[in-house]
Amino acid sequence: MKVGIIGAGRIGKVHAQNISMFVPEMEIKAIADPFANEETESFAKRFGIPVVSKEASTILEDPEIEAVLICSSTDTHSKYIIESAQAGKHIFCEKPIDYDIAMVRKAIQSAEDAGVKLQIGFCRRFDHNHRAVYDMVQNGDVGTPHIIKISSRDPEPPPISYVKVSGGIFYDMMIHDFDMARFLAGSEAVEVHTQGSVLVDPAIGEAGDVDTAVVTIRFESGAIAVIDNSRKAVYGYDQRVEVFGSEGCAVNANDTPNTAVLMKAEGTISGTCYKVMWDRYTGAFVEEMKAFADAVVNGKEVPVTGMDGLYPVLMAAAATLSLKEGRPVKISEVE
Amino acid sequence: MKVGIIGAGRIGKVHAQNISMFVPEMEIKAIADPFANEETESFAKRFGIPVVSKEASTILEDPEIEAVLICSSTDTHSKYIIESAQAGKHIFCEKPIDYDIAMVRKAIQSAEDAGVKLQIGFCRRFDHNHRAVYDMVQNGDVGTPHIIKISSRDPEPPPISYVKVSGGIFYDMMIHDFDMARFLAGSEAVEVHTQGSVLVDPAIGEAGDVDTAVVTIRFESGAIAVIDNSRKAVYGYDQRVEVFGSEGCAVNANDTPNTAVLMKAEGTISGTCYKVMWDRYTGAFVEEMKAFADAVVNGKEVPVTGMDGLYPVLMAAAATLSLKEGRPVKISEVE
Amino acid sequence: MKVGIIGAGRIGKVHAQNISMFVPEMEIKAIADPFANEETESFAKRFGIPVVSKEASTILEDPEIEAVLICSSTDTHSKYIIESAQAGKHIFCEKPIDYDIAMVRKAIQSAEDAGVKLQIGFCRRFDHNHRAVYDMVQNGDVGTPHIIKISSRDPEPPPISYVKVSGGIFYDMMIHDFDMARFLAGSEAVEVHTQGSVLVDPAIGEAGDVDTAVVTIRFESGAIAVIDNSRKAVYGYDQRVEVFGSEGCAVNANDTPNTAVLMKAEGTISGTCYKVMWDRYTGAFVEEMKAFADAVVNGKEVPVTGMDGLYPVLMAAAATLSLKEGRPVKISEVE
Amino acid sequence: MKVGIIGAGRIGKVHAQNISMFVPEMEIKAIADPFANEETESFAKRFGIPVVSKEASTILEDPEIEAVLICSSTDTHSKYIIESAQAGKHIFCEKPIDYDIAMVRKAIQSAEDAGVKLQIGFCRRFDHNHRAVYDMVQNGDVGTPHIIKISSRDPEPPPISYVKVSGGIFYDMMIHDFDMARFLAGSEAVEVHTQGSVLVDPAIGEAGDVDTAVVTIRFESGAIAVIDNSRKAVYGYDQRVEVFGSEGCAVNANDTPNTAVLMKAEGTISGTCYKVMWDRYTGAFVEEMKAFADAVVNGKEVPVTGMDGLYPVLMAAAATLSLKEGRPVKISEVE
Repeated sequence: MKVGIIGAGRIGKVHAQNISMFVPEMEIKAIADPFANEETESFAKRFGIPVVSKEASTILEDPEIEAVLICSSTDTHSKYIIESAQAGKHIFCEKPIDYDIAMVRKAIQSAEDAGVKLQIGFCRRFDHNHRAVYDMVQNGDVGTPHIIKISSRDPEPPPISYVKVSGGIFYDMMIHDFDMARFLAGSEAVEVHTQGSVLVDPAIGEAGDVDTAVVTIRFESGAIAVIDNSRKAVYGYDQRVEVFGSEGCAVNANDTPNTAVLMKAEGTISGTCYKVMWDRYTGAFVEEMKAFADAVVNGKEVPVTGMDGLYPVLMAAAATLSLKEGRPVKISEVE
Repeated sequence: MKVGIIGAGRIGKVHAQNISMFVPEMEIKAIADPFANEETESFAKRFGIPVVSKEASTILEDPEIEAVLICSSTDTHSKYIIESAQAGKHIFCEKPIDYDIAMVRKAIQSAEDAGVKLQIGFCRRFDHNHRAVYDMVQNGDVGTPHIIKISSRDPEPPPISYVKVSGGIFYDMMIHDFDMARFLAGSEAVEVHTQGSVLVDPAIGEAGDVDTAVVTIRFESGAIAVIDNSRKAVYGYDQRVEVFGSEGCAVNANDTPNTAVLMKAEGTISGTCYKVMWDRYTGAFVEEMKAFADAVVNGKEVPVTGMDGLYPVLMAAAATLSLKEGRPVKISEVE
Repeated sequence: MKVGIIGAGRIGKVHAQNISMFVPEMEIKAIADPFANEETESFAKRFGIPVVSKEASTILEDPEIEAVLICSSTDTHSKYIIESAQAGKHIFCEKPIDYDIAMVRKAIQSAEDAGVKLQIGFCRRFDHNHRAVYDMVQNGDVGTPHIIKISSRDPEPPPISYVKVSGGIFYDMMIHDFDMARFLAGSEAVEVHTQGSVLVDPAIGEAGDVDTAVVTIRFESGAIAVIDNSRKAVYGYDQRVEVFGSEGCAVNANDTPNTAVLMKAEGTISGTCYKVMWDRYTGAFVEEMKAFADAVVNGKEVPVTGMDGLYPVLMAAAATLSLKEGRPVKISEVE
Repeated sequence: MKVGIIGAGRIGKVHAQNISMFVPEMEIKAIADPFANEETESFAKRFGIPVVSKEASTILEDPEIEAVLICSSTDTHSKYIIESAQAGKHIFCEKPIDYDIAMVRKAIQSAEDAGVKLQIGFCRRFDHNHRAVYDMVQNGDVGTPHIIKISSRDPEPPPISYVKVSGGIFYDMMIHDFDMARFLAGSEAVEVHTQGSVLVDPAIGEAGDVDTAVVTIRFESGAIAVIDNSRKAVYGYDQRVEVFGSEGCAVNANDTPNTAVLMKAEGTISGTCYKVMWDRYTGAFVEEMKAFADAVVNGKEVPVTGMDGLYPVLMAAAATLSLKEGRPVKISEVE
């Protein structure tokens, strides 16, 4: 299967490398980026990508290309989904589809109308640790889920300039966790309540956002989830999930670069956590691309659908409103 | 220092044994219980307690006795606090003081008026694992607390008969965690929001309670706490706390009876958690009594004051109201 | 069952306290020590022990006393075993029975001749972590044992004066591990090979001993054990065992005072290990005494027999000879 | 830097993929294998390798190629080292260089004479967990090493046909651990003593080998190492190292595919270990190749020298002799 990649930034390149090394079913024919330059050419050469272009249309109009990976900036996602769908190409699109719920729906509809597959890049579903918890839940090992706990903390806040345009912590950060909560709960969210504070950097507050947030979610099943986010964990990425249910509890530990510990007179010391996101989620990017290739080549359902792209955006909208109004907000209020 | 114990049930005996073995500053002169019998006599003999009585007054009127341990049923706590205070005796009282906030205040006042020490039996503050996290926080190791997480799950629900009279999950179970949240946060609660479900046993719902609850708490400092409770963890007691702050994160693991693991073809297996509360908190009961002895003998402040007994009751009242009305409730609404 | 304790030093007192608190089948009638003083009297009073004496004969001649706990200095162990046996009393004796193999045999024989029970104080067999590994092995979970690994390291070397008279590291320290190796292997040792070095303190070498030793043991079953000892682990007691077999591997972790960890920018830190032996093995002393009471009261086999006291001494003798001659030594050479 | 790979089997391909993805300083110009076929061609195309040949001479005679990776069968290693050295090319050679100590010396000499770099493929030195322990030791965190412990167990024995020609467990399996012991000890081995048994499969014994072995090693520094090997750990690869020293103890845990655990009524279960060597050591292969590229491109010392290839062979020879003769063997006896 020949594929094209729209967007040659960091994430586009990561997908390209992973396909080259780990996804033999795929062959990258073209990579397109308005800022494509010599360095892009050299990268393409090393990984055997014959075509480099500044125009997405080079990919969209190439009849040989069966699938498109949309790795461009968020504001172009829904546009390229629609164009790719209309061109009859299967689509892998980075998250989120759009901040505008109507646009998200439109993009999903276009893929459906065209009968093409649409997979959203919620890579954490493919993380080895999170997936292992999910598998335990799916396997019935915890029985019926009652409580879901997700901790998700970043090593450093993004630049204030980014905070101002990202839509805020619920859209740019907790959206991963909203997806994870649904994924683990196996049920849809009914109501969301937010507690948020500005404790890391007052400038984040001045930009209208919070940097510390705890959100509780009630699901249709009666299960309750709680997500905590902080923009700044001095010790690095902290990403843990837990599903407690009628028959047991599945829980993972944060990932660390190694297992060594040092026992000293003053205590036992182990290494720091990952401080770079790409190191923390290396394997997850590989696995999601394998899953997309498998879905397209073998005609299977994609593991993260367009609707899976929509719901976290609804939850982010409800969490934002809850914070603003200081009350629980029903998902039905923001649909 | 001679002490008397009111109540010769399980907890009264545990305190008696611990004093005998680990608290040389104390000598138990009398134990009183309306149901005192031969078995009580035999117990007293083994641990060198000279006086056994059916009347609390035997203790309250004995001028040699300097301190009273109130280990009777909850409905008698505030009464005995007041009487002990009036008799000029220092008081250790099991939690909770009372479900009636006015009575709690009255009991605290009486101890204050009499100038006697009053320590409340929130034993978890003395648990080796929780205390270690607290010490890290106090030591400044996590900087300013931002997020506090407490998981507290029991192996089995209490009998329905108990649920009906206990005041519900927030008063009989989460009250420990409300105390722990304040203890770790080093700040007072401002607002509480509850998500609760009946997922373990419908009979609990019929009795007007929930069996699964997630409560978020906003503190004056801006820190946010989340407590999750379940009446039934099939794997045994699960008690973990975490304090995430500006400089780090202190977190403990659940306590287990041993550290052995078994590596097998099908996975690695370690032992079950504690399934009996007394085993889980053995050391904590010893430590709290040592602390009480230290406070009385050496004229120090008690580590868990009467006000520390009041605030968790206020939080339980707010959590109960939040569940009922489906909205965040301010502590000031229930004071 | 009434018991008498010969020796009112640290270990004698620990057994007295444990019996008082945890072993209701036993009642301590007398404690004897040539150095008994006021402090011994006061201790006895607190734990309800009616008789304090300077003479062991007070105990040995008391017809009411059914069992004797020998907690005196090592050089008196075999003598008191023989006298207690002749007096028809069941015996619990601290390890080792004697450094002289002939005396060990004689002591064992005397108990056998008198038909009294003789239990040796290898308390580590009752440690929660080691016992859990043992139980896994007994349960068949690891299949046939192939490799046994024991790490045993002390926080500080004993005084040189002790090293000079103790018989050396194999007799005063590794003897516990020789017992543990047999206990876990379920087979008798055939050959021992020692590697030893003086790396901690040259004074230990000058006293004719080593402070760092690694001993391999071949068992009749073909299983191989390796024990490593160091006189000085700066981080505290380090006691771990592992049994690898045809069907799995049972391994424990070192015991720590609590489970709290601190995640910081510079790494994750957990607490130090135990630095005081009594804290490390608190529970083991209780369990061994419960087992002795159970054996005597219920007519069961004692869990650590006189022969269990002999074999580790043989292994220590072989290990000492191996170190001296730089070759593997068969157990049959030292019997 | 252009490189050629001799040997297109599994390990040759792994190095090719890793270079393509992670080592931008290198460009693979040719791959040679007497069994090169269509599949090899297709592999080469995907990773942009222009030349595929059946003759190693294609690589050795290509003046553009600066470095050679020797990934062919062991019996050809020393031959290709000598030829590559004579052709003036830097050399990365898989371990072991040769079973014949004289040939090892000759190969090393040839590289030295030619002034080319020679790195041996002891990949475990680059494993994240082992490296972390090594770094702690190098950093002085454990002080002077006293005891080194290495557990190394494979999931399944190799075919008997392999056992017959491999030189035995000390040459084909423990050789990695001999290297690791030297690497961690920072000292040379003086004496080796072996305990070995046939406990896994009698056919291994009939082939003249053992399947379970514990080897102790005395180093010049006085440090003592112990290595245990088993041909069959039912739970998968078990690879752990520990360095205990005057100032602390560095120890790692076995690597596992994920950190998830499942708490159930019957115990807590975590996932199995790795069962495929390539999964266990994925990262190590990448790191060793990066280190080789760095050494060649930046004129640094290679991290695993030819002499590092020789010493483990000497240790294997001594361990084999010790097993045969039932006595400790000095390294000087086999040099």
